[in-house]
Amino acid sequence: MSRNFPVRASLRLRRKGIAGDPSGYWRVASYSSPFSLLFCAQTPGFRSASRAMNPDIARERQEASFDVEKLTYILDGGLEKTKRRREIESLVFSDPDFNEEDPNFLSRSERYDQAVRKSAQMVLKLREYGIADPEEIYYYKRMAQGNQHEALGLHFTMFLPSLRSLCDPQQANKWLSLAESFQAVGTYAQTELGHGTHLRGLETTATYDPATQEFVLNSPTVSSIKWWPGGLGKTSNHAIVLAQLYSLGNRHGLHAFIVPIRDMTTHEPLPGIVVGDIGPKFGFNEVDNGFLKLENVRIPRENMLMKYSKVEPDGTYVKPPSSKLTYGTMVFVRSMIVGESARALSKSCTIAIRYSAVRHQSEIRPGEPEPQILDYQTQQYKLFPLLAMAYAFTFVGQYMTEIYHRISEDINQGDFSQLPELHALSAGLKAFTTWETNSAIEVCRMSCGGHGYSRSSALPDIYVEFTPTCTYEGENTVMMLQTARYLVKSYRQAKEGQQLSGIVSYLNESQDRRVQPHAVAARPPVVDINDLSSLVEVYKQRAAILVEMAAKSIQQELQRRKSQEDAWNNSAIDLVRASDAHCHYVVVKVFNDKLKGVGDTAIHSVLSTLALLYAMHGITKNSGDFLLAALVSVPQVLQISVRMKELLSQLRPNVVALVDAFDIHDKKLNSVLGRYDGNVYEHMFEWARRSPLNATEVHESFQKYLKPLRSKL
Amino acid sequence: MSRNFPVRASLRLRRKGIAGDPSGYWRVASYSSPFSLLFCAQTPGFRSASRAMNPDIARERQEASFDVEKLTYILDGGLEKTKRRREIESLVFSDPDFNEEDPNFLSRSERYDQAVRKSAQMVLKLREYGIADPEEIYYYKRMAQGNQHEALGLHFTMFLPSLRSLCDPQQANKWLSLAESFQAVGTYAQTELGHGTHLRGLETTATYDPATQEFVLNSPTVSSIKWWPGGLGKTSNHAIVLAQLYSLGNRHGLHAFIVPIRDMTTHEPLPGIVVGDIGPKFGFNEVDNGFLKLENVRIPRENMLMKYSKVEPDGTYVKPPSSKLTYGTMVFVRSMIVGESARALSKSCTIAIRYSAVRHQSEIRPGEPEPQILDYQTQQYKLFPLLAMAYAFTFVGQYMTEIYHRISEDINQGDFSQLPELHALSAGLKAFTTWETNSAIEVCRMSCGGHGYSRSSALPDIYVEFTPTCTYEGENTVMMLQTARYLVKSYRQAKEGQQLSGIVSYLNESQDRRVQPHAVAARPPVVDINDLSSLVEVYKQRAAILVEMAAKSIQQELQRRKSQEDAWNNSAIDLVRASDAHCHYVVVKVFNDKLKGVGDTAIHSVLSTLALLYAMHGITKNSGDFLLAALVSVPQVLQISVRMKELLSQLRPNVVALVDAFDIHDKKLNSVLGRYDGNVYEHMFEWARRSPLNATEVHESFQKYLKPLRSKL
Repeated sequence: MSRNFPVRASLRLRRKGIAGDPSGYWRVASYSSPFSLLFCAQTPGFRSASRAMNPDIARERQEASFDVEKLTYILDGGLEKTKRRREIESLVFSDPDFNEEDPNFLSRSERYDQAVRKSAQMVLKLREYGIADPEEIYYYKRMAQGNQHEALGLHFTMFLPSLRSLCDPQQANKWLSLAESFQAVGTYAQTELGHGTHLRGLETTATYDPATQEFVLNSPTVSSIKWWPGGLGKTSNHAIVLAQLYSLGNRHGLHAFIVPIRDMTTHEPLPGIVVGDIGPKFGFNEVDNGFLKLENVRIPRENMLMKYSKVEPDGTYVKPPSSKLTYGTMVFVRSMIVGESARALSKSCTIAIRYSAVRHQSEIRPGEPEPQILDYQTQQYKLFPLLAMAYAFTFVGQYMTEIYHRISEDINQGDFSQLPELHALSAGLKAFTTWETNSAIEVCRMSCGGHGYSRSSALPDIYVEFTPTCTYEGENTVMMLQTARYLVKSYRQAKEGQQLSGIVSYLNESQDRRVQPHAVAARPPVVDINDLSSLVEVYKQRAAILVEMAAKSIQQELQRRKSQEDAWNNSAIDLVRASDAHCHYVVVKVFNDKLKGVGDTAIHSVLSTLALLYAMHGITKNSGDFLLAALVSVPQVLQISVRMKELLSQLRPNVVALVDAFDIHDKKLNSVLGRYDGNVYEHMFEWARRSPLNATEVHESFQKYLKPLRSKL
Repeated sequence: MSRNFPVRASLRLRRKGIAGDPSGYWRVASYSSPFSLLFCAQTPGFRSASRAMNPDIARERQEASFDVEKLTYILDGGLEKTKRRREIESLVFSDPDFNEEDPNFLSRSERYDQAVRKSAQMVLKLREYGIADPEEIYYYKRMAQGNQHEALGLHFTMFLPSLRSLCDPQQANKWLSLAESFQAVGTYAQTELGHGTHLRGLETTATYDPATQEFVLNSPTVSSIKWWPGGLGKTSNHAIVLAQLYSLGNRHGLHAFIVPIRDMTTHEPLPGIVVGDIGPKFGFNEVDNGFLKLENVRIPRENMLMKYSKVEPDGTYVKPPSSKLTYGTMVFVRSMIVGESARALSKSCTIAIRYSAVRHQSEIRPGEPEPQILDYQTQQYKLFPLLAMAYAFTFVGQYMTEIYHRISEDINQGDFSQLPELHALSAGLKAFTTWETNSAIEVCRMSCGGHGYSRSSALPDIYVEFTPTCTYEGENTVMMLQTARYLVKSYRQAKEGQQLSGIVSYLNESQDRRVQPHAVAARPPVVDINDLSSLVEVYKQRAAILVEMAAKSIQQELQRRKSQEDAWNNSAIDLVRASDAHCHYVVVKVFNDKLKGVGDTAIHSVLSTLALLYAMHGITKNSGDFLLAALVSVPQVLQISVRMKELLSQLRPNVVALVDAFDIHDKKLNSVLGRYDGNVYEHMFEWARRSPLNATEVHESFQKYLKPLRSKL
């Protein structure tokens, strides 16, 4: 039994929020042990049933073979991190100012209103508490926001950082003080109605007029209207606008300009500015993603961001010195998204697995009570590989942060040599983890049956807020192709005899490999399917072979007299597949490496099972690739299927504890299905009764349409 | 060039709705040819640009190799069907009463209000037009509803049909007239908070009281509260409630009761009834899915639906004669869902492919204009197999309807022999097509980049309204296992020497097959990968082998002294996989069979390419299965990859025409990205300006939170 002191401490910390919590979370006055109380829903007086823990989920926790609390430390990066995170989180859930209505009950305008209020409130509270460390701010905001986004998000993540990195000293002096005091609230306007990732295609123009020393900004076409920037529609009074610069009749490419869009006092749009909200979306309803149409808008010359390039008063253009710094920001954001994948997936698994532990349905053996749905092999097969994936992605997120910081130091010392590798890695892993997570959230939702479709499950919210990560900050297919470009380049270097280092060093071995996969088939595979390191090796070889196949496809296209570019496009399917295999290898490798640092035997054991399941599941799902290259044999594929079933059974007693270790507070999860105490049905009923449609017993449509219908027939 | 008379006729019909259409669709006064006009968005006066067809999409239509109109007839089931469908659809889009605001701009309550109004309106208009044929009603409603659902849906699809099939003559007399005149508006209340597919687990009780000759209905626990029925929350004044019947101290299992829940005059809930809306969901926001808690609710004895079983006044229970009729309804609904999959997928492909034809992005060759994104191989690889799937599922939907009607006739003549096969087929294909479509819609959405995430694309709506099909009317995994039960049973019968007929007759051959797939590997495959019939054979053999493997897994579990039930559960992964392979085989087979009936050479050619792409794509995605059983060789898998790229190029000029052939009217599609005329950006801008957040220039949150924030810092 693992319920030792640190766990109780954690529970005490969690219960600090009791008084201030409107949703009924943690209303139990106190309990000495979570296992001593019984669930009272079956008694006639269930409405007043006490909020004890559901006995099914209590039993699950009792049966765990490891110390949940210690695993949480590993996931957080150490006991001190966990402690600090919980302290910060408790500032939110003990704070009555954050007792809000579920946004799903509000209209779009009310949701936006609530989000702006929360954004303003967070600014004030963070200053009051003196929380300034970015990671700690992130803890705080994540807790306050639950499954939603921040109305002022782009002010913090794009406007301020862009000012910091693109202003010259004089500009910084003026604009940073305006922005930090929220006189200027801003966003970053890059994408246009007709233009996304391809920056050179942007159509907005900024033409310098030496007579007045102003830039004249225009949206020359419908497709050039700025579209999508968060906070642009209603919130911001300034935007950093990316536009094609023209001066003295010459075009100088894309530059950034600070454009005032609303009056700083009245907040009314300024002359020549057509600005507004782009309308409802799949999610992000808190955010006023906006449009901006510029009609001969004049801004002073000083509003061009001039740290790197300049336009002199007479219109002379001064080129920027070459810089790779913006490259770094992109890499940072993509690395962060890998962590977001892990968090969204952890939330989804927490909900689906806890609910599967309390939900009873159908029968396995006739006459016996309905089993927990977690006992169905099909349910285990849906969820446990995703749980393994959540752990894998958490560790990959940590890994990305670590190498980002390591390489950032190199960059600060002028060493850019590792940047291409990091760029390729962050692009590919961003795509790989977001795609995988995107599908996985929906599997979790549907594994909850009908109730997963209710907004009370939180799974629809998690999905719609997460899914844009597949598109923004680099569309996933484009990302995969960027990674492929690096892989093919590395492959060619290796073929030319260069010795590669880093993550692609496996391509050095490609010389020795036969290129015709069916010729290789004769070679007896040496993989030990029960040894994770051996499976990592197999994933590595798969990646090497698929990179080689993609490179050869390009070669063949070139031999058919195709241009470089057409050869590339005609091999794009193979290239994406190669990148995917490369990323999959990195994930399995990182998981395996992580295990080496885990000292606690019980935790090492359960994580090893998860890692093996993750690796085997990937082989099963892509068995064609592995068989094609004779990396595993047919009997081994069959053995893996059998072995996976054993791993599912082995994990079964630990899965609730494994999601508990993510330590996601009920307030952050905001899911009636994923509640820590497992008391799902009472809270679903309570939640439903708050539905806006229940504000009146009789909806007005009855008098308006239904009653008259009778007489009209 | 295929633009002959029937196409023009179709265009004329489409334009009939011009005057009544508020969204600006088809505002062009007239045009003799869609190719003679140019897109004006690039001109300075773009705001007043005429609504000519986008030149990219016009060119695509010009390049099609077949007659679109003739393909539409094939999809509809004949020229006459197409004609009638268009006539009925034009009744909606030429009707100003159906000029509604986009529901995405409305609050939940307004959406519900709009839907009730529309439901009532449709009842009146259908009577006025004298449309009574179920298929024609369906055409009308589908057009009027766009991507949303009907508020009164369950009154028509469950309440009325249940009354018709479960009332005795006296009851029918009373209740049908009440329901048909909308005095009684009803729903069907089966599922409970804690209980879904497993009917025996339902907890609601109906206890007969001989003293008053009444039933007393109760919800004894929280988990027994009725949950999910559409129309239960606010709309219905009656519900058919499924409850466990108790009489004279004995339990008699589940029976159906008509329970009045709201006063027929005031619409207020009746005593003992706690009823309401279950709250916001992922979609279905027009529908008031509801909860119902029964607290000693008394109903007269005559409110038990007594066609098959009865309770006599003294409490004596009279058993029903055994009946397989309800079985038939279930099968019918599941067959219908296969068609729904095809329609949702056709819509999604129409949007994604048309948008990909007008969207330009990035560059393939440096210096050249940005290409249509449809020219990227990765985009083709995402979308064309889904287009092929949309055609495949359309034909499978037709096939299901045909065999349903054929077998229904048998049943009416007392012959139930084909019902088990149809049941297994409808369960599996419901699961197979909904799962595939579910993922496919999201691929279509994400293939539209950021704009796919806007509600203006319609893809979020299509997804959230479609995704519950994976769960309702039989949860998909449960469905797959039901099909597997039939397959394993058939397999065993074949092993015992019985000669199977029908779709599972391929299991007869299993005797001859070696059971160890790796032993088979030596056999040289005889498949011709370019011959569709040969691929159908390969799919068939894959199904046979996977059914055999699942059956053997059960056998092995039994040999390990597991019970039948545990052996089944421990083989569930293999069983689902076997069902999936069986369904996949059926789909490929039906597509191939359909081709045989297509006389038009040009259409036969393009459909053959689609069918080959569908079959090859399935082999690529599941290559492990095929390699495992040595059904194809390693070189063949590689050849298929190469061949698929050729098929993508071959289809490229025809894909816009192939989605045009679905003939989905803009009003039904309700997508700015999928517009027939391709004028995407202007309409996206128009749509956005109607967003509720743009009702005022300055949102109140500015004065409330943002302005005060400055002074507080």
